[in-house]
Amino acid sequence: MRWYVVASALTILTSSQGILTTLSQSEGGYKYDYATVPFLAEIFKLIVSCLLLWREFRGPTPPKMTTDWRSIRLYPIPSIIYLIHNNVQFATLTYVDTSTYQIMGNLKIVTTGIFFRLFLKRKLSNLQWIAIVLLAIGTTTSQVKGCGEASCDSLFSSPIQGYMLGVLSACLSALAGVYTEFLMKKNNDSLYWQNIQLYTFGSIFNLAKLLLDDFRNGFENGPLWTRLLNGYTLSTWMVVLNLGSTGLLVSWLMKYADNIVKVYSTSMAILLTLVLSVFLFDFKPTLQLFLGILICMMSLHMYFTPPRMLVDLPLTQKAEESQSLVEGSVDQRRTAS
Amino acid sequence: MRWYVVASALTILTSSQGILTTLSQSEGGYKYDYATVPFLAEIFKLIVSCLLLWREFRGPTPPKMTTDWRSIRLYPIPSIIYLIHNNVQFATLTYVDTSTYQIMGNLKIVTTGIFFRLFLKRKLSNLQWIAIVLLAIGTTTSQVKGCGEASCDSLFSSPIQGYMLGVLSACLSALAGVYTEFLMKKNNDSLYWQNIQLYTFGSIFNLAKLLLDDFRNGFENGPLWTRLLNGYTLSTWMVVLNLGSTGLLVSWLMKYADNIVKVYSTSMAILLTLVLSVFLFDFKPTLQLFLGILICMMSLHMYFTPPRMLVDLPLTQKAEESQSLVEGSVDQRRTAS
Repeated sequence: MRWYVVASALTILTSSQGILTTLSQSEGGYKYDYATVPFLAEIFKLIVSCLLLWREFRGPTPPKMTTDWRSIRLYPIPSIIYLIHNNVQFATLTYVDTSTYQIMGNLKIVTTGIFFRLFLKRKLSNLQWIAIVLLAIGTTTSQVKGCGEASCDSLFSSPIQGYMLGVLSACLSALAGVYTEFLMKKNNDSLYWQNIQLYTFGSIFNLAKLLLDDFRNGFENGPLWTRLLNGYTLSTWMVVLNLGSTGLLVSWLMKYADNIVKVYSTSMAILLTLVLSVFLFDFKPTLQLFLGILICMMSLHMYFTPPRMLVDLPLTQKAEESQSLVEGSVDQRRTAS
Repeated sequence: MRWYVVASALTILTSSQGILTTLSQSEGGYKYDYATVPFLAEIFKLIVSCLLLWREFRGPTPPKMTTDWRSIRLYPIPSIIYLIHNNVQFATLTYVDTSTYQIMGNLKIVTTGIFFRLFLKRKLSNLQWIAIVLLAIGTTTSQVKGCGEASCDSLFSSPIQGYMLGVLSACLSALAGVYTEFLMKKNNDSLYWQNIQLYTFGSIFNLAKLLLDDFRNGFENGPLWTRLLNGYTLSTWMVVLNLGSTGLLVSWLMKYADNIVKVYSTSMAILLTLVLSVFLFDFKPTLQLFLGILICMMSLHMYFTPPRMLVDLPLTQKAEESQSLVEGSVDQRRTAS
């Protein structure tokens, strides 16, 4: 399977997530306990990964699996980072409004680029850096509030703590992504075996969180196991399956592509969600949505098109200049070395 | 003189133009006849060019001047295009509101790129095209109305004629620019002699327009010569000198740089005007202004930075890949030919 097929599927599923979640609400609220959705999605991913690993076992070459404790103990780390991240998100929202929060979320595109460079030692060209910053600008532009919705609070009117927590949140999110990529690529273990380790810890952490919440509320809604699936409808199950599938695609991308591909994929999902909202929820299209889409498309083109195709002059002129270009590049190499 | 010094001066003078014009108003209106300003600016440019040509005559080598009628007859053409352009602008404003009109004005960045390619046969790389489109997007983004100002009219709500006239206006503006560049570069005549020809026709056309307006109004405010400088204050003269100097810098750029440099220069002026308005007129800075500035800065960087500096990977990796890069480029050249 090609990475761009997986990335496109991730874009579609991620944007469906928001739409499905809205559709699963009834009378503006959830009839079910939303906190149970990520837990069931972890269980779904775990089951799918077990089935796929079992299929690999029946194939001609058995899957490669590292079962050393020194390897396994690295797998709860992403779950721990996400746990901290969730709490930071919660704290951020006590300082800033949801629309500022949403805008700040685009910062993780840039932090992912930086962490990708720092921790995975992956080099990016000057142009690719520009493309990454443009992607963040494009998604932000598309989210600028339009007619009627615009709040009259001046820019940067929230307390400084809100922005610091927003930056911390962007760093944690990037760290989780980059760390997962490191885990998935550090050896050529079977993807499904790596997934099983990730999702087992994911399920445990999610379950612990649900039980802890129950304990905090003094079991006033009854214990978890008696109300886990309360109020679940077909659309709620769709939300669970969709969230689970999204996770499986992200794992695949972390192993066979990289964090930047994932970032492009989820950023395009932001735009697709806005476009779908225009049709599904009578959301009014704004000029800034249109501009944001154009910016992101150009960023995508700049990041993934082979550099030669971007900077070469059209053929007629190239023929004339090819000699001087060759000389120029030789000169440059001499200077550089 | 280097082109970027002239381009920076043009940016500063162009953005001062809007500020000075606002300052020259008293009680929200003009005490003077605004239509006389462009005429006096043409006269100012003509005088300056005559003085500079006279200085050249006193130098060691006399200026090169083509005085053939077949050459001179080309110089009224820019004035004629601007005359048509002004009337199209006026017609456009009967269909669209001023804010839509302002947004559509950015289209001339793209049309200038296209005409530059078509009529001056100047090749641009893929990346430079992206940069030009980004420049138009950046200036548009900075002009998206913010808090409170946002009109609730849906995007594209004006009659179709308004948009068609907007496109025509962008084409005429680009045509005038590209034609002037062709005129200035077609031979190595003295810049000042070329200017004298341009501004003589410019003065004639402006004077004719003023007289025609007088005639249409039945001379109710008295003939032009008795009221030309009525209500002129120091700030009005500043507006005239500023507009004239802007024109002289544009002529210089058309001869020694090109239309794209001019377009960057005047686009940066749009942003500078908005930033200065924040300080001078208590204009509220918006998120979109900040995003627009970032986009334009990246566009500027992409257009003018040598391509090798943009697409090359950092040195350490380049060393490893240099061999394969050379092979790759040879392969590509073979495929292309």
